[in-house]
Amino acid sequence: MILKLSPADTFDRAKMNDLIKRRFFYDNSFAIYGGITGQYDYGPMGCDLVDNLLAEWHKHFVIQERMLKVNCSILTPEPVLKASGHVDKFADYMVKDVKTGECFRLDHLIKQHFEKVMADKKTSAEEKEALSLTVARLDGMTMEEMNDLMRKHDMKSPLTGNNLTDATEFNLMFPISIGPSGNLKGFLRPETAQGIFVNFKRLLEYNQGKLPFACAQVGNAYRNEISPRSGLLRVREFTMAEIEHFCDPDDKNHPKFAQVADTEMVLYSGCAQMDGESAKRMTIGEAVHGGMVANETLGYYMARIQQYLLRIGINPKKLRFRQHLSNEMAHYACDCWDAECLTSYGWIECVGCADRSAYDLQQHTKGSGVRMCVERPLKEAVMVDSLAAQPDKGIIGKTFKKDAKAVQEALTALTIEQAEQMDKALTEQGEYELSGFKMTRAMVPSFKREQKKVFVEEIVPSVIEPSFGVGRVFYSLLEHSFRVREDDDKRTFFSLATVVAPIKVSVLPLSNKQEFVPFTTQLADALTDLNLSVKIDDSTGSIGRRYARTDEIGIPLGITVDFDTVNKVPHTVTVRERDSTQQVRMPIEEVPLTIKNLADGKTQWKDVTDKWPIFTSQETTK
Amino acid sequence: MILKLSPADTFDRAKMNDLIKRRFFYDNSFAIYGGITGQYDYGPMGCDLVDNLLAEWHKHFVIQERMLKVNCSILTPEPVLKASGHVDKFADYMVKDVKTGECFRLDHLIKQHFEKVMADKKTSAEEKEALSLTVARLDGMTMEEMNDLMRKHDMKSPLTGNNLTDATEFNLMFPISIGPSGNLKGFLRPETAQGIFVNFKRLLEYNQGKLPFACAQVGNAYRNEISPRSGLLRVREFTMAEIEHFCDPDDKNHPKFAQVADTEMVLYSGCAQMDGESAKRMTIGEAVHGGMVANETLGYYMARIQQYLLRIGINPKKLRFRQHLSNEMAHYACDCWDAECLTSYGWIECVGCADRSAYDLQQHTKGSGVRMCVERPLKEAVMVDSLAAQPDKGIIGKTFKKDAKAVQEALTALTIEQAEQMDKALTEQGEYELSGFKMTRAMVPSFKREQKKVFVEEIVPSVIEPSFGVGRVFYSLLEHSFRVREDDDKRTFFSLATVVAPIKVSVLPLSNKQEFVPFTTQLADALTDLNLSVKIDDSTGSIGRRYARTDEIGIPLGITVDFDTVNKVPHTVTVRERDSTQQVRMPIEEVPLTIKNLADGKTQWKDVTDKWPIFTSQETTK
Repeated sequence: MILKLSPADTFDRAKMNDLIKRRFFYDNSFAIYGGITGQYDYGPMGCDLVDNLLAEWHKHFVIQERMLKVNCSILTPEPVLKASGHVDKFADYMVKDVKTGECFRLDHLIKQHFEKVMADKKTSAEEKEALSLTVARLDGMTMEEMNDLMRKHDMKSPLTGNNLTDATEFNLMFPISIGPSGNLKGFLRPETAQGIFVNFKRLLEYNQGKLPFACAQVGNAYRNEISPRSGLLRVREFTMAEIEHFCDPDDKNHPKFAQVADTEMVLYSGCAQMDGESAKRMTIGEAVHGGMVANETLGYYMARIQQYLLRIGINPKKLRFRQHLSNEMAHYACDCWDAECLTSYGWIECVGCADRSAYDLQQHTKGSGVRMCVERPLKEAVMVDSLAAQPDKGIIGKTFKKDAKAVQEALTALTIEQAEQMDKALTEQGEYELSGFKMTRAMVPSFKREQKKVFVEEIVPSVIEPSFGVGRVFYSLLEHSFRVREDDDKRTFFSLATVVAPIKVSVLPLSNKQEFVPFTTQLADALTDLNLSVKIDDSTGSIGRRYARTDEIGIPLGITVDFDTVNKVPHTVTVRERDSTQQVRMPIEEVPLTIKNLADGKTQWKDVTDKWPIFTSQETTK
Repeated sequence: MILKLSPADTFDRAKMNDLIKRRFFYDNSFAIYGGITGQYDYGPMGCDLVDNLLAEWHKHFVIQERMLKVNCSILTPEPVLKASGHVDKFADYMVKDVKTGECFRLDHLIKQHFEKVMADKKTSAEEKEALSLTVARLDGMTMEEMNDLMRKHDMKSPLTGNNLTDATEFNLMFPISIGPSGNLKGFLRPETAQGIFVNFKRLLEYNQGKLPFACAQVGNAYRNEISPRSGLLRVREFTMAEIEHFCDPDDKNHPKFAQVADTEMVLYSGCAQMDGESAKRMTIGEAVHGGMVANETLGYYMARIQQYLLRIGINPKKLRFRQHLSNEMAHYACDCWDAECLTSYGWIECVGCADRSAYDLQQHTKGSGVRMCVERPLKEAVMVDSLAAQPDKGIIGKTFKKDAKAVQEALTALTIEQAEQMDKALTEQGEYELSGFKMTRAMVPSFKREQKKVFVEEIVPSVIEPSFGVGRVFYSLLEHSFRVREDDDKRTFFSLATVVAPIKVSVLPLSNKQEFVPFTTQLADALTDLNLSVKIDDSTGSIGRRYARTDEIGIPLGITVDFDTVNKVPHTVTVRERDSTQQVRMPIEEVPLTIKNLADGKTQWKDVTDKWPIFTSQETTK
C-alpha cells in the first residue's frame, strides 16, 4: 500500500540514469578502481544543484527563522554515542549466505521475498492480505520474530539460492581509533544532531539563556549499511541538514503558527494507516487544533518543510506527510511525521520531523554529568530547604590546587539529597567521592540547613527536530524534474526551477566565427559579474543540438549571438526559455539584469514575453 | 629565522582566545565529555564566518574562473591511496615516553628542544647558528638522522622528563573498514585532491575533451596527528578547498596572466632562504619572467590567491609567499609556493600552490589500469605502424556474452607491443589473459600489420594545485582582525570586513519598551528580506554595552531605535559603523538598501557619512 506507484506515471528510470551518468550529475565513487556500492561522487552539475538546494535551505530556515548554526566534529568519542543510545541500539539485523558470506539486511530480505510472493498469480487474496500486514509490522519486530519468519517461509539468498545464517545484530556505525596510541575509541557520527545536543549549554548561553531557540547543522554522517542497493537512497556517506528547536516542554505553541495555519497539506495519519484509509488533505491549522499533529511547533515546521520542498521544485502531487506508527517511533518521541516523496522506488522518506521530548538532553546529562537545563522564571518566588556545605577553603585549595574551583562549584551544585548523602558518608566512612574528587571530613567540616528564596525553576527543554536527508531530496527532485520532449523521445532534460538550476544561463554563438567572440565574451563577463553561473558553448554543432545539450543539464535560459547581433544596431540577441522553448529578441545591454531577475525569481518568463516580441527567425544570415 | 614574530606586535593571544570562547566562535569538541585534542566545534559566529569565507572563495575562483566542481567520497578504498603514495609515505616519525606511553612527533620535539636551547643565554652564538641550520634542515631528514639527533642531544619527554623510545613511522591516515564483512579496507581521505584525480576522465569528457580546465572541491579531510597542540593550526579533522588545474605540460602559459602581471607580492624564494636574505617585494610578472616562479599558470594562481586573501581581510603586511626548498618539496613537484600568514605562532602555511607535474594522473593510470590522458591534435598527421587483431566476433560473443563488448574494446586498445606479445603467446601457449579475460587462438585467429594515419597524440596533463587550509585562513584572519579599543583595554572586538562578517547588522531598541517594538520588527524583517543576517538585541543594558557586545562578534553596522524614531516624522534611526564608532541619522525607509549596499561592498561608510549628517545625540529622550 505504501510502496505503490501512481499508475499513470510513465517515468523511465533507465533513461534518467543514462542522462545523470552521461552529464555527470553523480556517479559511483572510485569507478576506475572498480567502484564501490553505497558511495557516490557528485559531478559539477550535481554538486551545484546540491549547493543551491542548501543555499535555499539556509535562507528559508536559518536566515528567516534567525536560527543559530554549528559545525561539529564528525569523529566522535564513544561515550557520546553510548549516552545517545547509538552504541547499544543503532543496529540492523543481518544474515549471511552460508557459502559465500554475502551479507543481507534481514528486514529488506523478508520484504523482498514477500513482495515476490504477493506478485505471484498463484498467491491467494487472503495470503496476500496476510503478507501485506506482516510487511507493515516488520519495523516493530524483534530479531527472533524475523528469524522465525525467515525460517517459516524457507528464505534463501536471493543471489545464490544458498542457505542463510541466523540473524545477528550489526551496528551501523563505523568504528575509528583516534590518536596514535589506539586507546581512544570513537565512531564516525551517524547523524549530525548529537553535535548540537552536546553544545546545548554554549548555545543557550549564546542565546542569553532564553528559550525557545533553534540551531541548525549541515554536514556529513556515516552509516555502514549492510548491502546498499538503491542508488542515492541508501548510501554509506551522506549529507544531512538538521534543526534542533529547543522549547519549553509546557508551551509548544509557536508565535508564527498563525502565518502557516492555512497551509493545505496531505497528511497520512497513523490512524488512517491502521484503518486502511488513504491520506487526507487538510490545513495544518485543522490538524494541530484537531489533535492529529501533537503541537503548534511541530505543525509549524511541517508547513515550513512543505514550503521549502515546493519552492525547490518538488511536485506537490507527489508529496505527503506520513505519521510514524507507534511501533516504528522511538520510545521517547511524542510524535513524528515524515515528508515523503513519491519516486519510482515508491514513497520515500526525505525529511523527518519529530518531537523528541527531553530525551537527548537527559541522556547527555546522565552521560557527561553536566546538567543540560534552562532556568524558567517562577510566577512567584518560593522558599525551599537547602543544605549548604561549609567547606574549609584553605584545605581544599591546598589539596586540589587548580581543580579547587571545580570542587567548590560541585559543592555549590549539590541538591539537598546529595548533600545529606555526602554528610552521612563523611561521618560514617570519613570520605566521599564528589565528581571524581576524594573529599574528606576536614575539607567539609559541616553542612548548614537553611531556607532559600527561589525565583526560578530548572526545566529540561523539549526538542522538535526537522531532519533532512539531502541526497534523498536531491534524488526526488531529479525524478520530479525529469522530462522527455513530446516530439522526440531521445531529447531528455531536467526542468529545474531557476532558483536551484546549477547553471542559470548559456551563451551560444551561432558558430565559432571570430566576429561573434566580442559579443559572447562581453555577455558572459557581464553575467558572471552578477554572480550568475554561465555556460559558453562555442563548439561546432547546430544551435538546436547545443540547446538540447544545455536543456539536459537543466539550464533554464539560453542566449544566442547571431548575425543580427553583429550586423544590426542596436545589437540584439535572442533569449530562450527551456521548458516552453520560446525565444524573444532584446538589446544586448538589457540581457544581464533580465537574466538576474529571472534567476532570483523576481520576474517570470511571462513578464519577459510581455515586454519583448517572440522571436522566430533572424533577418541577416551571414 | 622563519618563525620570528614582528617585534612591534602587541597581539595578546589569551585575550583573543577569551573572546573566541566566550562568544562561541569555536571551542573544543565534546567539552562536556572532557574534550578531545585536535578537534573543534564551530559555533554560530565561527560557522557563519567560515561559510562567508567559502562563499567568497567560490565567487572568486569557481564562478570567476568558470571551474568545474566535484564533491567526492571521504571513505576511500585502500588501492586509491596506495596508488597516490599515501599508504606507503604519508607518515610522521613518532617517539613514545617509555613509561607513560605518551606519543610525540619527533621533528616537533627536536625543534622545541633546540628552540629552548637557543633561547638560553648560556648558548654561544656559534651553537645557536648551528642549531638554527639544523632546524631548517629537519624537513628533509631521514628517521635515522632524527633518531641520532635525539640521542646525541639526550632529549627526554618534555612532559615527564622520562626516556623516549626510538622513532617509528606512524601513518597519519585513519584506517576504516567499509561494509559489514570487514574485507574492504579503506581510509578517511587525507586530502580532497585524490577525488578530483580519480574523476579526471569524467571531468575531461564534461569539458568536451579540451585542456586546460580546472576543477575545485571543498570538503573535509582527516589526519591522525600524533600530538596536536596548536589550536586550529593542527587538527585531526579539517576543511580543505582545493583546485586542480589541468594543462598542457608543454604550454603552461595562462591567457589571463597579463591581467595579474602587475600584482605586487612579497616573495621569499628558495635561494633567498638558503642565502639568509629576506623576502623581496616584486610583481608576479617580474617573478615569472625572471624565472623565480616556474610558469605563468602557477604565477597566475599565486596572484589570485593573494587577491582573495586580501579581499577577506588578511593583513597585507603579514602575508608572504615562500618557495619550498628542494628538500621539503615532493620529488615529483616542479615548483611550490606557500602563502604564509604571520600569526602569534609565527609564519604559518595557509595556502599551498604547487606544480605537481603529471605525477598524480600517472600514478592512478598505473594503479587502476585506466589511461588518464588527453588527445592533443598534431600539427600534421603522421603514419604509424599498428598490429590489428582480427577477432572471430561470433566465438567472442558466445563465450563472453555481455562482456564481449569490453573484450572487443580491449583488443582495439592494444598497443603494437602488446599485440605482438599476445600473438606470440597465442601461438606458443594457445592462450593469453587480456584485461582479466582468457583469450584463445580461436577467438583471435590472426593479427594484421598495417599503417594508420594518426592526427592526435596522447599526453598526460600537468596539474597546478592551489590548496587552501580553510581553518588556518580562518584563524589567521581572526588574529589579523582582533582589536582592542584604545580607551578601554577590556573592549575587544573583531574588525571583520563586511563581506565576511557573520552578521551584517544589529538592531537595538533603546530599551525593551513596547513602543519601540513595531520599528524594531519592521526593520529586522526588511533587512532579513534582503537576505542580510540580523541580530536583534532588546536585552536590558545600556546602548553602549550592547554595542560592545555586537562589536565583539564583528557586526560592522548597528541601528538604534530611540525616542526620536517614535516621536518625530519622518521616522529616523541612527546607523553606527563598528571601527570608527561614527553614527549618522537617516529615515527608516532608507536603511535596508543602505545596509545592503554596504554589505555587498557596493558603497563605503564614507559615502554614507557624505550623505547623512553625523549624529551626536537624540532630541527627544522619552
